[in-house]
Amino acid sequence: MYRNAKNVGYYMIGPDSTDQLFDLMRPVREANPDSPAIWFIDHFFTNHALVERLNILEWDMRVFVDTSEEPTCESVDKYTEQVKHFLNGRKACALLAFGGGSTMDTCKCVGNLLTNPGKAADYQGWDLVKNPAPYKIAVPTLSGTGSESSRTGIMTNHEKMLKLGMNSDFSLFDQVVLDPRLAETVPRNQYFYTGIDTFMHCFESLTGNYRNKVVDTFAEKSLELSEKIFLSDDMMSPDNRELLMIASYNGGQAAGFVGIVHPLSAGLGVVLGIHHGMANCYALSVLEEFYPKPYEVFMKMMEKQKIDLPKGICKNLTDKQYDALYEASIVHEKPLMNRLGEDYKKILTKEKVIDLFKKM
Amino acid sequence: MYRNAKNVGYYMIGPDSTDQLFDLMRPVREANPDSPAIWFIDHFFTNHALVERLNILEWDMRVFVDTSEEPTCESVDKYTEQVKHFLNGRKACALLAFGGGSTMDTCKCVGNLLTNPGKAADYQGWDLVKNPAPYKIAVPTLSGTGSESSRTGIMTNHEKMLKLGMNSDFSLFDQVVLDPRLAETVPRNQYFYTGIDTFMHCFESLTGNYRNKVVDTFAEKSLELSEKIFLSDDMMSPDNRELLMIASYNGGQAAGFVGIVHPLSAGLGVVLGIHHGMANCYALSVLEEFYPKPYEVFMKMMEKQKIDLPKGICKNLTDKQYDALYEASIVHEKPLMNRLGEDYKKILTKEKVIDLFKKM
Repeated sequence: MYRNAKNVGYYMIGPDSTDQLFDLMRPVREANPDSPAIWFIDHFFTNHALVERLNILEWDMRVFVDTSEEPTCESVDKYTEQVKHFLNGRKACALLAFGGGSTMDTCKCVGNLLTNPGKAADYQGWDLVKNPAPYKIAVPTLSGTGSESSRTGIMTNHEKMLKLGMNSDFSLFDQVVLDPRLAETVPRNQYFYTGIDTFMHCFESLTGNYRNKVVDTFAEKSLELSEKIFLSDDMMSPDNRELLMIASYNGGQAAGFVGIVHPLSAGLGVVLGIHHGMANCYALSVLEEFYPKPYEVFMKMMEKQKIDLPKGICKNLTDKQYDALYEASIVHEKPLMNRLGEDYKKILTKEKVIDLFKKM
Repeated sequence: MYRNAKNVGYYMIGPDSTDQLFDLMRPVREANPDSPAIWFIDHFFTNHALVERLNILEWDMRVFVDTSEEPTCESVDKYTEQVKHFLNGRKACALLAFGGGSTMDTCKCVGNLLTNPGKAADYQGWDLVKNPAPYKIAVPTLSGTGSESSRTGIMTNHEKMLKLGMNSDFSLFDQVVLDPRLAETVPRNQYFYTGIDTFMHCFESLTGNYRNKVVDTFAEKSLELSEKIFLSDDMMSPDNRELLMIASYNGGQAAGFVGIVHPLSAGLGVVLGIHHGMANCYALSVLEEFYPKPYEVFMKMMEKQKIDLPKGICKNLTDKQYDALYEASIVHEKPLMNRLGEDYKKILTKEKVIDLFKKM
């Protein structure tokens, strides 16, 4: 049985394409005259001039998403309640995400919960969402996670000590607007850590056992673009910002077939609250034996872009924390088998895993 | 103003994925219990065992498309009449195309005419179709044209001596099924001529003035795959058949920004009825001065695959025929400007164009 892969409905790309958002929304506005739009905006943009350019209507709802922590089941449930309270029985004509991976994932998950009963945690897994979500638009202000084109919205479940997504066709955006100017003012470190995520999930996909030839072509191309961007003199040049948006968009379609980096990264996220992009970098920094070539390229990129990854983040933790790091990593059976085969627990023993964390 | 690019809704890929067609259709069948499906099938498959595997229902309609000639406005109008007569006021739950570019283009154009008034010729051009077409599925049995993922359905208009498509988002398929086994028994020459179309529109797109960076990444990847396939020892190996399906699918999204090959090819199609793939080969065979590198690669591919392109097809034509060849080529302003700039008529004088045809 082959999987039937769903695509993002529409995409638009170009500097200042954000200015066409109002026109893009006209049909859904007109078709739903009594329905406001819900805007999920990274809290970084509170009172920011960029938000004025979005043409948000008076009666729309603005949800400023606190991205200092990545989405959790609790935060998603909280935003869902706020939106439901605001809508008060009305439908939303559109949900929009203006931000990076955390904002987009929040928008995707809340979308599913507006049309499906229960809590966020009920839908962590594969194809558990039953009803279509409202129409959704992504306007990424940061690229790399691929959330704009992937079928998942990742949430940390603190109760289960697990980082897992709502994997569903209904999580996909209907419209994506890629405006490379939005990333102009991102701090260099953040641009790197987020952008490099594309490199991470693409090489993981290409070195795995579970392959899909279409996904491979996306991953190969995105990998090529990532290397071009992060080995160039100015990773944030206008051209590179645009290429990174493309790499991220294409790479998002390659996500889902990851390897060892993402499980270790999830461990860091769950236990220490380290953000996904940076956590990936820590993970790869100790995985040379499993990924010698990507490790080498990655180290060159870090050097070229003068990115400093402070050592020792997992030193002097409690035994309980080390146990938790192991558990929150090893639980990711699919990706670990993708790289290491069925006997992955024989290779990644508890001792080995804790040792890897201690090296970070 | 940037264009909002629409994607194919869903795609599935893999050997024998055709066997999942019945399941893929279940939701539209169930949602439209009184609506039959309309199957556009290349007439080559009349009484062919493959058709039995499609699970066509008793009350569905089978339209065997005569692909000895490529689609014309007349043929599309004729098939539209037949389908309307069969439906007799009912709706179709789905239109399916099982064949190569001609069959898929016929399906796309008839689809638009089932929900829009008038004749095929009324919609040759850009964004003239006003109402959405019925749900459409493509199952290509031959790859290269990219029709399965492009927003156009090409028709020859004999009255206007013009080859032009119905360029519309409504022309796009909702579902594509890519089954590389379907191309197992295609004659080598036909496989080459059709497959090479991807190479053609991708290098034309990449050497043009009108560029789009997303389209570029698709075109670059498809070009790389085409070269890999057609410079290998066996262009029809199972792996290469699958890669060609991917290259064609990705390349279809790069179509629309072509150059000089396609206009000359359109001339050959309109005036001499030469099929698109072969006509492209004739065109490139005399365009070394404009495309030196692609010309060289193409010649190597021809040699490697032992493809014989008989010379002299435009020798000894009448003056009227040469005039017609010129007219049917030079009318394609957009692609010619894409490669040659606004002064393209100063470069491609009538004498020059006729001379190129005489060299074929």
